[in-house]
Amino acid sequence: MTSPARTRLAPDERRSQLLDLGVRLLATRSLDELSIDVLAEEAGISRGLLYHYFGNKHAFHEAVVRRAADDLIAQTAPPVEGEPLERLRVSVTAYVDYVTANYEGYLSLVKGAAGGNDALREIYEEARSALTDRIFREDARGQIVADTPTTRLLVRGWSAMAEELVLSWRAEPAGVSREELLAILAASLPALVEVIAPG
Amino acid sequence: MTSPARTRLAPDERRSQLLDLGVRLLATRSLDELSIDVLAEEAGISRGLLYHYFGNKHAFHEAVVRRAADDLIAQTAPPVEGEPLERLRVSVTAYVDYVTANYEGYLSLVKGAAGGNDALREIYEEARSALTDRIFREDARGQIVADTPTTRLLVRGWSAMAEELVLSWRAEPAGVSREELLAILAASLPALVEVIAPG
Repeated sequence: MTSPARTRLAPDERRSQLLDLGVRLLATRSLDELSIDVLAEEAGISRGLLYHYFGNKHAFHEAVVRRAADDLIAQTAPPVEGEPLERLRVSVTAYVDYVTANYEGYLSLVKGAAGGNDALREIYEEARSALTDRIFREDARGQIVADTPTTRLLVRGWSAMAEELVLSWRAEPAGVSREELLAILAASLPALVEVIAPG
Repeated sequence: MTSPARTRLAPDERRSQLLDLGVRLLATRSLDELSIDVLAEEAGISRGLLYHYFGNKHAFHEAVVRRAADDLIAQTAPPVEGEPLERLRVSVTAYVDYVTANYEGYLSLVKGAAGGNDALREIYEEARSALTDRIFREDARGQIVADTPTTRLLVRGWSAMAEELVLSWRAEPAGVSREELLAILAASLPALVEVIAPG
């Protein structure tokens, strides 16, 4: 017996709701722990219907991770107005908050991407490019960082550092406060740029 | 028929020779591509004898990676004399040269460790600790970086950045010279430390 509220949703909307639920469940679970069974139970629908929406477990995981990556990109969008470094600080703060709140799922994405899962790797690389490309985007007040091959490499390195710092800190803060972490993340990029282009 | 030169080696020496050969082969191969068959052929001995020395493929891979990690640690040892930052520069240069020369194997170690292979993860973490702990070791001229929870976190982040920079640069230099890369790596750590402890 399906409730009237459910039948009113078009299949696309229902699928989208299930993805949002998957992302929420992923906050406190690794991707391996997010089985079709868990989702079926949490959503209160049958496994068969889930397979109908997603095909198989891999396709379901891929769809959830893609949705999570889109959420990350949306939530960490820098404000359109403001000084470049202030926009960077706001974006970095949102990144720390996102990873902190969605730690288990984010960690399993990083591991899966690094460990040779090609579908996860692609989503991960796309998300990272989306996050770092913003740094080179020009607006009325200029770019956060000038776009050269060396700064592209540097920003790639900085983003690996940012990820490591947030994941390490979340696993073991060791007395380092959130404010200290945010200060390091926001100030480190300009400091690194200064290394290659003093002035 | 075994040659006299071979029979003169004690089993431990022979095993050690085979590990060195494995490390050399790993320079241009991923760990997956370093099969017992490949090693048997390159060493000119039987598969059976290799299994005798190493037990199974996983134990063989683990032993080769451990040897490779020991080589990396030995080859990147900073000089005992000199200014802290000069010692860091020498060590970082050796790191770049090691990863450049042993790219395929190093990349597969990083991927395997990140991807959830516990044995590889343990070796990787030990090697990274060995590399970064040096930065906090005190000698007559002082530490490269003062030892605090925040600098420990920062050096962990810096080392993730260094790894990403070297691997990205080796895969796609994009016109960035080795000298530029070395300059970035050596100068970035002091620049990051300055971020948290200006002065």
